Amino acid sequence: MIQWKNMDQLSSYQELQKVEKINLAAAMAGENGAERVKNYTVPMGEGLDFNYAARPVNDKILSALAALAKDAQLAEKFEALYNGAVINTGEKRLVLHHLTRGQLGDAVMADGVDKRAFYLEQQKKVAEFANKVHAGEITNAAGEKFTTVVQIGIGGSDLGPRAMYLALENWAIVNNTHKMKAEFISNVDPDDAAGVLHKIDLAHSIFVLVSKSGTTLETLTNESFVKDALKNAGLDPSRHMIAVTSETSPLAKSADYLAAFFMDDYIGGRYSSTSAVGGAVLSLAFGADVFARFLNGAAVADATAKNQELTQNPAMLDAVIGVYERNVLGYPTTAVLPYSQALSRFPAHLQQLDMESNGKSVNRNGEPVDYVTGPVIFGEPGTNGQHSFYQLLHQGTDIIPLQFMGFKNSQMGTDLVIQGSTSQQKLCANVAAQIVAFACGKQDENRNKNFEGGRPSSIIIGEKLTPGALGALLAHYENKVMFQGFLWNLNSFDQEGVQLGKVLAKKVLAHETDGALKVYSDLLNI
Amino acid sequence: MIQWKNMDQLSSYQELQKVEKINLAAAMAGENGAERVKNYTVPMGEGLDFNYAARPVNDKILSALAALAKDAQLAEKFEALYNGAVINTGEKRLVLHHLTRGQLGDAVMADGVDKRAFYLEQQKKVAEFANKVHAGEITNAAGEKFTTVVQIGIGGSDLGPRAMYLALENWAIVNNTHKMKAEFISNVDPDDAAGVLHKIDLAHSIFVLVSKSGTTLETLTNESFVKDALKNAGLDPSRHMIAVTSETSPLAKSADYLAAFFMDDYIGGRYSSTSAVGGAVLSLAFGADVFARFLNGAAVADATAKNQELTQNPAMLDAVIGVYERNVLGYPTTAVLPYSQALSRFPAHLQQLDMESNGKSVNRNGEPVDYVTGPVIFGEPGTNGQHSFYQLLHQGTDIIPLQFMGFKNSQMGTDLVIQGSTSQQKLCANVAAQIVAFACGKQDENRNKNFEGGRPSSIIIGEKLTPGALGALLAHYENKVMFQGFLWNLNSFDQEGVQLGKVLAKKVLAHETDGALKVYSDLLNI
Repeated sequence: MIQWKNMDQLSSYQELQKVEKINLAAAMAGENGAERVKNYTVPMGEGLDFNYAARPVNDKILSALAALAKDAQLAEKFEALYNGAVINTGEKRLVLHHLTRGQLGDAVMADGVDKRAFYLEQQKKVAEFANKVHAGEITNAAGEKFTTVVQIGIGGSDLGPRAMYLALENWAIVNNTHKMKAEFISNVDPDDAAGVLHKIDLAHSIFVLVSKSGTTLETLTNESFVKDALKNAGLDPSRHMIAVTSETSPLAKSADYLAAFFMDDYIGGRYSSTSAVGGAVLSLAFGADVFARFLNGAAVADATAKNQELTQNPAMLDAVIGVYERNVLGYPTTAVLPYSQALSRFPAHLQQLDMESNGKSVNRNGEPVDYVTGPVIFGEPGTNGQHSFYQLLHQGTDIIPLQFMGFKNSQMGTDLVIQGSTSQQKLCANVAAQIVAFACGKQDENRNKNFEGGRPSSIIIGEKLTPGALGALLAHYENKVMFQGFLWNLNSFDQEGVQLGKVLAKKVLAHETDGALKVYSDLLNI
Repeated sequence: MIQWKNMDQLSSYQELQKVEKINLAAAMAGENGAERVKNYTVPMGEGLDFNYAARPVNDKILSALAALAKDAQLAEKFEALYNGAVINTGEKRLVLHHLTRGQLGDAVMADGVDKRAFYLEQQKKVAEFANKVHAGEITNAAGEKFTTVVQIGIGGSDLGPRAMYLALENWAIVNNTHKMKAEFISNVDPDDAAGVLHKIDLAHSIFVLVSKSGTTLETLTNESFVKDALKNAGLDPSRHMIAVTSETSPLAKSADYLAAFFMDDYIGGRYSSTSAVGGAVLSLAFGADVFARFLNGAAVADATAKNQELTQNPAMLDAVIGVYERNVLGYPTTAVLPYSQALSRFPAHLQQLDMESNGKSVNRNGEPVDYVTGPVIFGEPGTNGQHSFYQLLHQGTDIIPLQFMGFKNSQMGTDLVIQGSTSQQKLCANVAAQIVAFACGKQDENRNKNFEGGRPSSIIIGEKLTPGALGALLAHYENKVMFQGFLWNLNSFDQEGVQLGKVLAKKVLAHETDGALKVYSDLLNI
């Protein structure tokens, strides 16, 4: 029987706070440190390992965290979720993004259909469409092949797919599967659409309009913008556009689109990269096979997230240690630091995933919670960040837990030995060095050159950033965020916090304002 | 006589803490709120206004902040800085980036030369070089014009110039002054260089190698990478490369470069966008006139930063209110939210500028401080962020001060009326709405739909993001960070925190490691 309790009502949470903290700098020193790095690791599938040696835990704290995970019924709640319980309480919805990539438990029936079969069918339709575009069976009106795909979407319809595209662009080039260049239009700022339209070859571009509701202001505005540009170029918009939306949206059956692919209300925008939202653009860009490999990777990571043994479940482990850092140690932010230029926008995606899911002050029942919840998430790729904000991470007055990622091999395989090492070795040497520098620090009599250490991190180490590894990486973080939401007793699947701004913006545009809002509107010439 | 004191030794700081806090939601409501928006604004030059109505201050708190600014001798310290005092105590250096764009005070002599004249000379050399490239007087070996400029640099040699380039790219296109496309290689990740080299036309590209010391690992590695690619393409690297470095660096007099332009040790990397570091790439991309307009904008903002009257000095005002939010109200992070897609990487630049300057735990004399210093800085453009992390900003358990920016006009001027308003109006309506939503909130019996408000922000409002406005925006933040460093009594111009990682990375590459570092190295296959 699942019980939804606030975290501070769990006796295991009270116990956790009493467990002696570790001195991370001491724990990571010498042979003991070496043993930690060897032992505190768990496979994630797809050649990835989650190594948490430099997180602020030891066996005692891990036992207390395992007790917390059990007490909070994390495994049971995940099981309930993938078997179709109404986990999104606010909106009274199922949460089914896992079904877009695998069948974790029972068949889930909703709206009179088997949802796994429904998502598979959409995936198949997308694949067939992409294949036809690549084969030149679907072309522009002049019978010429499309060369560019442009996603029009915002938030979850933009950040995830964009981050995934950038993550695999170079990999696809060297693997001869880069079939179409992708671009993205998201912002209602007219310069966003105008800038993208300026640089693409309109006559050979296909646009993917993504809006679940079919009513997103930015997306519909940008659709009109693009249609206008197509018409001005003498092109027929309906020959250049597809829609990804829900079956009940106004876009679903429109003759304005070459095709429509469906998701549903059981997949939140920020969890939709593995649905048709990511599927259309990624299948067009890289081919349906690549997208299938990406889904398989996510399914593998989902399977590891089912493990009831905490130390065998990387997503659950990452989640409970993160909550320990946030609530027991009191660290308010977390940095995401992939040592891979291809993951340049992955931190921005995780920023949405995490902060929109768990940036909340009320529990699943709408009652205020008495503890802090989701941290601020930010990050940039290494080594770039080392030459930017790492100064504060090393010597600032706050401690910021770090999430590193590193890969043994580059994607493109173009590398040179310079001063006795390849660039990839230099990249990896830097991330290894950073972990130890943050954890252990270094005493110096000149306090300006002193490093206190004790700054926690973990690293996900992979063989290479392939479609499968990327899928596993994505699913890991989705599941981590889900488990943290369970711990904090939040509904991680709604986003009521975005509503008030929308309502007020409409009032501004209708000139129905007074007070401060009216003056701001005047100052901004609206 | 200037005295360098820790902030908690200033009686004005003790007084500030005693002043009654304001209820922001109440203050921003009704006619009082409207009056605040009208009154709490100060011009920044170049058509920009800094509006701080939604920051958590009132006249009493502003008086206390003015007393703090005076007590901390902010204006005198700035004067000492631009007149050539050794403000960078750790490295015993002058801090002269303001001289790259204007003469704020006395002539500054150093190394036997007038530094303003020196920077002007470099700017002139860059302009002449760029003009010759644009005129086809400097070409590739085949006598063909260069079409692309690629900056090779990292940290301050990358983030600022890249953010500035992206900020003006569309503006330059519509103003017929987009002369060359710019690309950037920064990361030691070999896929960064390989990816950029894959997409450019090598034979018509000119590379700008930027390293003050001439020893930066990433930059020299990427230089070798690029030279190798040029040679493999049958091209002579020395016909395709220029250097921006210090006069004493190994790159300065090398025959490997078409030309070398100089900065010096008195300009920190993160403050170097207005030196030749930004000048070379921006002059090549947009023309020297555009770069000169950018410098003029920065000079105008610098001049406003001299104002001794706090409420007439936007950078000082932004700085002291930020310290109030950080140290008195205890907010650990700040979000930078430009409502302009062109400013997509401006937050990343400010992240470096702020966190590398003030992410420190010891004062100018190397003694630990007893208060928190630089906050974590993060951000993305609006409206994109609204569909991403704003959920946490509105309803999360922590309060995060916000720095909005908005412009009345778009850069490209391509816009459409859809549902009664243009896209630019929709963009501006959203930022206006957000300020009020954050500040005032909205009561709802359903706690899940409740907005507490009391979340502070300011907004910089501009006519249009022109080169001049961009320069003013950049200088505003540089000066803000400088004033905050003065308040916290930090040396904002060194970055000792980046050294330990470099030292350890070298050990890894030399296989001179033991303990945890050795195991991490093995796991990463180094």
